[in-house]
Amino acid sequence: MAKRVVIVGAGAAGASAAARARRLDPEAEVTLIDKGPFISHAPCGIPYFIGGVVKEAQELAIYSPEEFARERRINVKVNAEAFDIDVKNQVLLVREGGVVVKYPWDVLVIATGAKPITLPVEGSELGGILTLRLPHEAPRLREEVERASTVAVVGGGYIGLEVAEALRSLGKRVLLFEMMPHVLPTTFDEDMAKLIHDELTRNGVELHLGEKVIGFRGVNGHVNKVITERGEYIVDKVIMGVGVRPDTELAERAGVKLGETRAVWVNEYMETSVPNIYAAGDVAETWSLITGRRIYVALAPPANKMGQVAGANAVKGRFLKFPGVLGTAVTKVFNLYVARTGLTERQARDWGFKPVSATIKARTTAHYYPGGVQVNVKMIADEPSGRVLGVQVVGADKITAGYIDTAAALIGKGATIDDFFFSDLSYAPPTAPVWHPLITAARVLSKGRY
Amino acid sequence: MAKRVVIVGAGAAGASAAARARRLDPEAEVTLIDKGPFISHAPCGIPYFIGGVVKEAQELAIYSPEEFARERRINVKVNAEAFDIDVKNQVLLVREGGVVVKYPWDVLVIATGAKPITLPVEGSELGGILTLRLPHEAPRLREEVERASTVAVVGGGYIGLEVAEALRSLGKRVLLFEMMPHVLPTTFDEDMAKLIHDELTRNGVELHLGEKVIGFRGVNGHVNKVITERGEYIVDKVIMGVGVRPDTELAERAGVKLGETRAVWVNEYMETSVPNIYAAGDVAETWSLITGRRIYVALAPPANKMGQVAGANAVKGRFLKFPGVLGTAVTKVFNLYVARTGLTERQARDWGFKPVSATIKARTTAHYYPGGVQVNVKMIADEPSGRVLGVQVVGADKITAGYIDTAAALIGKGATIDDFFFSDLSYAPPTAPVWHPLITAARVLSKGRY
Repeated sequence: MAKRVVIVGAGAAGASAAARARRLDPEAEVTLIDKGPFISHAPCGIPYFIGGVVKEAQELAIYSPEEFARERRINVKVNAEAFDIDVKNQVLLVREGGVVVKYPWDVLVIATGAKPITLPVEGSELGGILTLRLPHEAPRLREEVERASTVAVVGGGYIGLEVAEALRSLGKRVLLFEMMPHVLPTTFDEDMAKLIHDELTRNGVELHLGEKVIGFRGVNGHVNKVITERGEYIVDKVIMGVGVRPDTELAERAGVKLGETRAVWVNEYMETSVPNIYAAGDVAETWSLITGRRIYVALAPPANKMGQVAGANAVKGRFLKFPGVLGTAVTKVFNLYVARTGLTERQARDWGFKPVSATIKARTTAHYYPGGVQVNVKMIADEPSGRVLGVQVVGADKITAGYIDTAAALIGKGATIDDFFFSDLSYAPPTAPVWHPLITAARVLSKGRY
Repeated sequence: MAKRVVIVGAGAAGASAAARARRLDPEAEVTLIDKGPFISHAPCGIPYFIGGVVKEAQELAIYSPEEFARERRINVKVNAEAFDIDVKNQVLLVREGGVVVKYPWDVLVIATGAKPITLPVEGSELGGILTLRLPHEAPRLREEVERASTVAVVGGGYIGLEVAEALRSLGKRVLLFEMMPHVLPTTFDEDMAKLIHDELTRNGVELHLGEKVIGFRGVNGHVNKVITERGEYIVDKVIMGVGVRPDTELAERAGVKLGETRAVWVNEYMETSVPNIYAAGDVAETWSLITGRRIYVALAPPANKMGQVAGANAVKGRFLKFPGVLGTAVTKVFNLYVARTGLTERQARDWGFKPVSATIKARTTAHYYPGGVQVNVKMIADEPSGRVLGVQVVGADKITAGYIDTAAALIGKGATIDDFFFSDLSYAPPTAPVWHPLITAARVLSKGRY
């Protein structure tokens, strides 16, 4: 009998899992269920839609449900909310247009993703306090902010920074609140984050760092004030960007174990603790390629790969293994591209390494070639072993993404400072200085060895 | 007594060696000798000077001889031609302004670089047949081509293509002759090179591929015709770009062994076959990081690193090891950036691998983000082992250099197709598609595994 593979959640991980299961088992019955109207969706594009760089919200999805269903022979159910799992009988319960439909499964893949964290403070239920998560909600978001003149962004993570930029490009007054002393507090060290502060300030974002939001006030049920430890600020809208947490509600109904990060525990095959149930993407826990420790990283590229692994193993058993992540990420903040991989210096210390670091300024081209810009590279290594643990790059050129990918490639392979120095990277006057900035950083970090 | 380190040739390798020896041994007497007026020079910038992107030839050198001498406490001798070596007495003989000066050495580093190959054909000695090698000759070159209306470029290597672009930007008619069927014949496969042909043609370069130059004709000692197997072409100037060969003349006078590539044989410490004589940079042979086989690669980044190793070992004994090269390179051809690393498919076959390859087209941004351009990626792997052997990238965006560096980082670490697929590369809508083009290429190459 054809294997029945049911996948809940059609974001990056779920859509990848469905496509993969179909490809590796042409006989399987593959069903992909999502509570929203889109599939292969990801929140990454929403800030660009809000800012008007992307015109139509539909563009944010790669496939329409119909296309995906037809081209891949996948049973796609949108606007269908999976709300319970009968593990004993292997049946998924789904609400579709007011009726409950039962989906029997041989293998279930839970890819329910993450949801925005809401602050447990007074007034957080007020209207006009918005979150970004699902592309189909983006048009309403854009409409809401279009009418505002002052918008508070709460949280200085990737999404918070991207939204701040989008709002400034719409001419809004923007107040950015971050409770930690610097933006990107979990992914960048303070010295590098300061470069981002300068760019935000230069572009008119009013920074409120180290300032915790303790409540909201409103009139007629609509927010009009942000209250912090330090003061009160009159605003028209609030966009929350304080991070996401795994949406484990459905998974917990199946009794799967949660990990130490409160995301669904999975092994390298994306198997949960319950037989025949896999999890992948932002709902699942992963682990650091450097330390092996369990971490929670909600980013699209690993979600896609976890989906591939889950989808493949759903039909082929233990066919693929997911190796773990470095938390490689990049974002654009006005004219800066900021990118990072591996551990920050602080994380390295917290995790028991003896970190040393070097921060250099370099140019993106040969010194005589016009158009080069300054780029700042911080490299962190473990002193006793020489192993490079992390890199952060900030510069006004998208080649920054190339630097971080090169660093991620090396770090993922356990590279030392020596390996960085001797890596055979490309050079041409229009594309790089003859000593690549990563190599220069490794030289400085080698303390005179090179 | 202070160690006397004498370095011949102040290009990338020689200048690096001098700086390194000084840094690691503050007591050493370090002397750097060059036959031209510049130090830390490299030919890479000359095409940009000819095309007018760089205004002054002096800009092409990183340091002036005076600065370098002063800041590093190095005895710099420019316009000084080393012409013989007395190995027994450890003395270098140098012609300086008509007199011969003797430099006793404890350690000698030969970094005499490479020189352009001249074709052994009739008329090759005519005036108006020019080569690019030394920045101080660049102003004369620019003057010569400024007066020309039709220029032939002989050789479709990196320099040939860069010069063709420079000449077009000056409004010259340009005829490019390459005896092989495609440009970049030793570094790119034909399928990828064809994309470059299109760009050259679109920009008005007249391509003569698979057409061997068999001679030149002239009037009054100045070239006015290129003669090929197929015809005769009236030209005002000829620029030769048929490659370089190691300038081993001085090294041979010291009796050092040449390798199978006819460059100076060195081991991983950059030691030649003669005690206390090192060689580094374009004069020296190197070896492939993939196969271990001896190869000759004249590129600035490995030259710099070989110089570092030679300079360090000159004062500290066997302190550093050079690991070998992948031949990673990038260049700009009009609006295209073309980059490569490792083995081409043809080389892989010639060297006994069983290559499989995949060529994909991808975009440089998320599909909905404006400004993305198409990029073409070819990936070559060894079928039995899954090891990736080489990558070639052609696209109208300088992020191409970032792709090739990432590929080089992985290939240098022995990465397989699996490693490429699972590498944790960055993603943001403005910088990359969610499946990085290198990962997409690995997927296609995996033949359904991913």
